Amino acid sequence: MNQFMERLSLSKPVVQAPMAGGPTTPRLAAAVSDCGGLGSLASGYLTPEVLQQQILETKKLTSAGFQVNLFIPEKRETVTREEYERWQEKIPLARSASPVTDEKQDWDDFYEKIEIILKEGISAVSFTFGPPPADAVKELKNRNCCLMGTAVSVEEAVLLEELGMDVIIVQGSEAGGHRGAFLKTKGEPAVGSMALIPQAADHVSVPVIAAGGIFDKRGVAAAFALGAQGVQIGTAFLTCEESGTHPAYKQKLFEAVETDTSLTRLFSGKPARGIVNQWMEDRRQEEAEALPYPLQNTLTQPMRKQAKLDGNTDNMSLWAGQSVRATVEQTTVKELMDQLVPADVLSDHLN
Amino acid sequence: MNQFMERLSLSKPVVQAPMAGGPTTPRLAAAVSDCGGLGSLASGYLTPEVLQQQILETKKLTSAGFQVNLFIPEKRETVTREEYERWQEKIPLARSASPVTDEKQDWDDFYEKIEIILKEGISAVSFTFGPPPADAVKELKNRNCCLMGTAVSVEEAVLLEELGMDVIIVQGSEAGGHRGAFLKTKGEPAVGSMALIPQAADHVSVPVIAAGGIFDKRGVAAAFALGAQGVQIGTAFLTCEESGTHPAYKQKLFEAVETDTSLTRLFSGKPARGIVNQWMEDRRQEEAEALPYPLQNTLTQPMRKQAKLDGNTDNMSLWAGQSVRATVEQTTVKELMDQLVPADVLSDHLN
Repeated sequence: MNQFMERLSLSKPVVQAPMAGGPTTPRLAAAVSDCGGLGSLASGYLTPEVLQQQILETKKLTSAGFQVNLFIPEKRETVTREEYERWQEKIPLARSASPVTDEKQDWDDFYEKIEIILKEGISAVSFTFGPPPADAVKELKNRNCCLMGTAVSVEEAVLLEELGMDVIIVQGSEAGGHRGAFLKTKGEPAVGSMALIPQAADHVSVPVIAAGGIFDKRGVAAAFALGAQGVQIGTAFLTCEESGTHPAYKQKLFEAVETDTSLTRLFSGKPARGIVNQWMEDRRQEEAEALPYPLQNTLTQPMRKQAKLDGNTDNMSLWAGQSVRATVEQTTVKELMDQLVPADVLSDHLN
Repeated sequence: MNQFMERLSLSKPVVQAPMAGGPTTPRLAAAVSDCGGLGSLASGYLTPEVLQQQILETKKLTSAGFQVNLFIPEKRETVTREEYERWQEKIPLARSASPVTDEKQDWDDFYEKIEIILKEGISAVSFTFGPPPADAVKELKNRNCCLMGTAVSVEEAVLLEELGMDVIIVQGSEAGGHRGAFLKTKGEPAVGSMALIPQAADHVSVPVIAAGGIFDKRGVAAAFALGAQGVQIGTAFLTCEESGTHPAYKQKLFEAVETDTSLTRLFSGKPARGIVNQWMEDRRQEEAEALPYPLQNTLTQPMRKQAKLDGNTDNMSLWAGQSVRATVEQTTVKELMDQLVPADVLSDHLN
């Protein structure tokens, strides 16, 4: 057992990636925690009320601990009315979009969620899109909550440790869904796990969790060889029976191969990796002009919602990582967890 | 010892990446082979005569085997006179560029190099930018030359095995220099090593060599855990004393971090990973309009040549992979090889 596993009383060093927007259900999180890993609820896009309900539901399903993931609210970028209206024209159903939330509301929700997490005695909290504010860090640490930050570079990892994170989730370029990047870089902020994990592990003293490209016991063993104390896995959990992934989206995951995904800002305004579909192909030339988050996200929301009702994958966000070829049929969380970490595979690294 | 090492009589499962354009010298290749790895000469951009000289020179320096890398000549894309002249204006010194070679000349050179390789009894040949033609495969196989193809996807790996390659070098997105990609993909052809190596290893029966993001024994162990039988390393050899890397370029490698590199078509017309410099920054907006290979390559050649004379890194191609942060000082090949593969590290995998 290593420091990370000990801290969270895990018997398997596997974190289920928090996947906002549907896939991450109480049933999924509870099943992962019941298998000895760390199940995750994704509170991004949820109101505090719904988060509270999901926590209660998860607690009914498992007595093991689980984590809640929080988005760090964004500094708002301004756009011209022309830019906004141009996308309002292009995006199907955009005219029925809800008003864009303001930053103050996002922070109010953030702190309300922190209160719920404290009240419910959640054992771990992870953050995406930046470090949490100092007052939240202090309150959570007072209750011995394990704080996990998401980094895509050594610089982000070092900063997150300095700001009090107990664990750093290091996200390689292979990962599906949103990039956790929050600092500007000179070159590409999409560094592959093989290069990034050991460079990050060399520069922080807290445990590093490897995310991106891991789908079976070979990836788990490789992550440990590179210096990680655990792995975070998303795509392989998307096709589990317990996940809330739309059936048509699951089918796409079964069919896709490793070169079928791309980073795109066309759904939310932030770079995220998903299977290339009609919406991404049609707007490929306008990729650079997508509105900043959360504007693009708000405008595409009715389109994505309708696509789910219709089972229409052309207009859904089909988040997936580059290990998507490995998802070929639906499994249960238990089947997945058993093949990810067979009883003996970590013996070399867990002393 | 595994199948790959046995085939080439290696005591260390390390291939020095063939790095065309200067870094790969006979001294570098010989030093790697002398340490039990596979040294490589890069014949891309070389005339057959210069390749012949380099082979003779390498043979003088080592009695161990080494490989020669060959570029597969490209189908030429046509561009309009306007497009061509636009870049001729923009690229410093482009007006003094040599005439662009034609495809026929490239193939003539290719076959002349094959003849040299056969005559000199070279033990291994690797190919970049596609599979070699059937007649070359047949001739080389008749002389028991080990054929290695470069793949960036499972589909490319499978095709290369079908066409007779004995070894597949699987290049993850972390790798520096040119991408070996030769098939079109729906999404991004830049898949990270962590995701790509096991997916490729599952689909071919010949040995897989992992390239991209590997810089120390942790990466070697991880590559083996993922199913590779060896590793190919470029960036870490660039800063070795024996390499022909320009001193100013070496200095940039020592200073750069993992997020300082980017894929670019601005130097050659083909995507290649290098440290972002002034030329790349100035022309970032025009990236998509770069001329196809070899036109862009030919037009930027005088600029790059002059930059080397001046020690001016603003206009050099500074190829580097995403493990560049790990290069902090000059070492010898022996020092690097010793830390890459300590005597005991592979014992688990080499039975």
